[in-house]
Amino acid sequence: MVKATGEQDTSKLSKKDYDARVAQLRQDLVQMQVQLKESPLKVLVIVAGVDGAGRGDAINTLSSWLDPRGIETFSFRDASDEELERPLMWRFWRSLPSAGRLGIYPGSWYTETLREELRGKKALVELDHELRRIRHFEKLLSDNGTLIVKVWFDLTKSEQRQRYKDYAANPDTTWRATSVLQRAIRIHDRLARTAAHIIGETDRPGARWVHVSAADPRRRNLGLGETLLTSFQAYLAETRRQKHPPLSKPKRIIALRPEGRERLRQLPLEHKLSEKNYEQKREKWLGRLHRAVTAATAAKRSVVFVFEGWDAAGKGGAIRRLVSAIDARDYRVVPIAKPTDEEKAHHYLWRFWRHIPRDGLVTIFDRSWYGRVLVERIEGFCRPDEWKRAYREMNDFEEQLVEHGTIVIKIWMHVSPEEQLKRFRAREETPYKQHKINDEDWRNRAQWAAYETAVGDMLLLPDNAFAPWHLVPANNKRYARLDILRHATKRIQAALESA
Amino acid sequence: MVKATGEQDTSKLSKKDYDARVAQLRQDLVQMQVQLKESPLKVLVIVAGVDGAGRGDAINTLSSWLDPRGIETFSFRDASDEELERPLMWRFWRSLPSAGRLGIYPGSWYTETLREELRGKKALVELDHELRRIRHFEKLLSDNGTLIVKVWFDLTKSEQRQRYKDYAANPDTTWRATSVLQRAIRIHDRLARTAAHIIGETDRPGARWVHVSAADPRRRNLGLGETLLTSFQAYLAETRRQKHPPLSKPKRIIALRPEGRERLRQLPLEHKLSEKNYEQKREKWLGRLHRAVTAATAAKRSVVFVFEGWDAAGKGGAIRRLVSAIDARDYRVVPIAKPTDEEKAHHYLWRFWRHIPRDGLVTIFDRSWYGRVLVERIEGFCRPDEWKRAYREMNDFEEQLVEHGTIVIKIWMHVSPEEQLKRFRAREETPYKQHKINDEDWRNRAQWAAYETAVGDMLLLPDNAFAPWHLVPANNKRYARLDILRHATKRIQAALESA
Repeated sequence: MVKATGEQDTSKLSKKDYDARVAQLRQDLVQMQVQLKESPLKVLVIVAGVDGAGRGDAINTLSSWLDPRGIETFSFRDASDEELERPLMWRFWRSLPSAGRLGIYPGSWYTETLREELRGKKALVELDHELRRIRHFEKLLSDNGTLIVKVWFDLTKSEQRQRYKDYAANPDTTWRATSVLQRAIRIHDRLARTAAHIIGETDRPGARWVHVSAADPRRRNLGLGETLLTSFQAYLAETRRQKHPPLSKPKRIIALRPEGRERLRQLPLEHKLSEKNYEQKREKWLGRLHRAVTAATAAKRSVVFVFEGWDAAGKGGAIRRLVSAIDARDYRVVPIAKPTDEEKAHHYLWRFWRHIPRDGLVTIFDRSWYGRVLVERIEGFCRPDEWKRAYREMNDFEEQLVEHGTIVIKIWMHVSPEEQLKRFRAREETPYKQHKINDEDWRNRAQWAAYETAVGDMLLLPDNAFAPWHLVPANNKRYARLDILRHATKRIQAALESA
Repeated sequence: MVKATGEQDTSKLSKKDYDARVAQLRQDLVQMQVQLKESPLKVLVIVAGVDGAGRGDAINTLSSWLDPRGIETFSFRDASDEELERPLMWRFWRSLPSAGRLGIYPGSWYTETLREELRGKKALVELDHELRRIRHFEKLLSDNGTLIVKVWFDLTKSEQRQRYKDYAANPDTTWRATSVLQRAIRIHDRLARTAAHIIGETDRPGARWVHVSAADPRRRNLGLGETLLTSFQAYLAETRRQKHPPLSKPKRIIALRPEGRERLRQLPLEHKLSEKNYEQKREKWLGRLHRAVTAATAAKRSVVFVFEGWDAAGKGGAIRRLVSAIDARDYRVVPIAKPTDEEKAHHYLWRFWRHIPRDGLVTIFDRSWYGRVLVERIEGFCRPDEWKRAYREMNDFEEQLVEHGTIVIKIWMHVSPEEQLKRFRAREETPYKQHKINDEDWRNRAQWAAYETAVGDMLLLPDNAFAPWHLVPANNKRYARLDILRHATKRIQAALESA
């Protein structure tokens, strides 16, 4: 925890001194925004603190100092039904500034935590769970080029009481002398203990709390603005100091978990299944899958499929069979290719969060967030520390889905290099399949060993109990499609039964 | 109204004939999707018709024939609260496919119209109003590179009765023999008359209805798929035939309404206002504006500001003053610069629809949709028929906002060329203002006469009663800011009073 420079002084600042400091600060802040606009950096300013501290006033003042075109204030009142039907953090993900922009958050994810706890609805164990969630969220953003400035406004009990009196005495502010504030004063000490717990558990590198006394509104406003400015300058200086070398393609891909690669290699790939036998079984399992998905929809449970696999392993065909069991109004297939420029201006998981289905609906990702530890690792599109961190970030993401009630089904479709070659050639020779093969497929194929290693690591790191991988032997297309129908059905049934 | 080729035949099609035609159709449809994927075209498939026709089945079948990665089915059940708090068409705008993609709509905007009318909640006059809205919506999309395929499934009363019996007889489909269907049979003739009215009023070039008999499910499915295919092929052929010449910058900008330009030229620009007088008045009007916006928020009325004006006319400064009267949590400033690639893949109005505020909130557009008839007209970024059409499209857009209860305030900030030159020079000479001026500003300035003509046309075409332009003389910055505060306050007050 860091104290704002000098602003712990709670004496009154004269209007003259205030105006002089504001004039300078404004100029510096606008200069900061010009620098920010040109950079890939995102800035979050979280303004929290005790009731009566005047968060709203401070934010309005800060906003008036900034160029409003580069900032946005996100306030979270009652969640909309679209928000309630998704994991808790979805509403925060959809309210993140893009590169070069600044987001201001009155209270943000903390308000809710504090408020809920107060109502006694949550045991401490639940609060800690939420605080872990917040910690992960902030770390993940901070690790990926987001400056997080967190300011906590303090008031002592007597200052808070004085604030109430001041509000009540002035006709213009009497509406602020609320019963909520009265209650906050009454239980000041208990609230302070909870706040200390929350602050302690979320004060981490990259997301430090800065305490600012709110006793004098002028010092409070300056404290907020100057904290933002100095944090920004320190961040820039630090970033310049630890310049990363330019991204480059790694020479070798070294396994983190070689046994994952072994598991892949030892997967039996050859299966016999007659056309007739397949068709009978397919109809049976399509029927069962249809009933399972219908039951999930009725129970307001959403389903997320992740399809990964070698080029030409048959993802497209398998997805077609899968969706034929689902009402077209209930599913959506999201093909993951190059990110759009809006997606590039955000954290790499943002483009997946934006497609998370509402309760009762199905989303099928054709390729997914795992690209981070596959193609991006192998081609060197991100740094080693970035893809290494990604295992945990993705795990955390899936945990949130599962916790919300989403059924997450992850499939790796596996073929042998020989089978892939056969399919590539067939694609080249069949006129209406030629659009399905290009130079990139051949380039990826040349890196089979590297992908094998990366896939092996992905399967075992982390060993994810929330959403385990299902390996599908796919040399025989019919077998693979059936296997997926069966697996999907059973996973959905199991999830519904255990609920 | 066009009949689908051959599919008015209601006799049963044999499974063998069906399978043969499906095999060919599937191949053609996938080929179509490959062509579509590479093109800037968007395709909407609207599937409507009488109850019991099997719209869902037909859509599921069509989906199973297509590559699910390029399509999306949008179904509109109960509107979410985020949708209810915006104009009716917002939910359809947010559910449009982007370039190269295909959207399938069961019922779509028509279902609601039909259903509402049935409940007797709407008089015919209201229905016609909604149909006009739909007509405009479809025309606007079709005019801008969207293929709209509308299929209406027919069933005679006796076929419908038979369908009910078939459903009821089979345990797998008995759930479909609903009271809704029973009622639909009972009032078949009345419904048919309403449907005929809706179809007649929305059957327009670029958005034609195709009737397909749903008596035989196989013919119905083929009818839908073949209608899509032939419409696509016809569209491509037509587009190839009428190739537009490449976009180019027009040599001269000829006024459509020269009196608009005159009005602009005659606007008195010089005003005296002392610093002290300004400050007093500003405080007074900021207070009034604050109260007006607070009242609007309380009344769940949203406010949309449109700021347009010459470069260096002072839009940024005026917006800063304006927002200082509004709680930071309630407003959002949307600067309009180059569209992102997601925005480019949609209709030009899409990027504005996506920022329409929820009820009770304020959005300030710093430049706006009027770019279509200003910079795009002058630089030749769109064709003359496109920008000429835009006046009406934008008018229609604003009408929808106003009808929903949004208060739309449009401001043109006007300076003389001499004043602009003075400001450009000052920007170049002041270090912290240099980022505010670049070569493009000088290039735009060189086209003063062209812009003057385009602005004049914009002011008068169409003469928009829903959201009139307010001309602000802005040579004197203080005067301009005050004028805007005053105008905004009065407009909001007037809107609240007349409600």
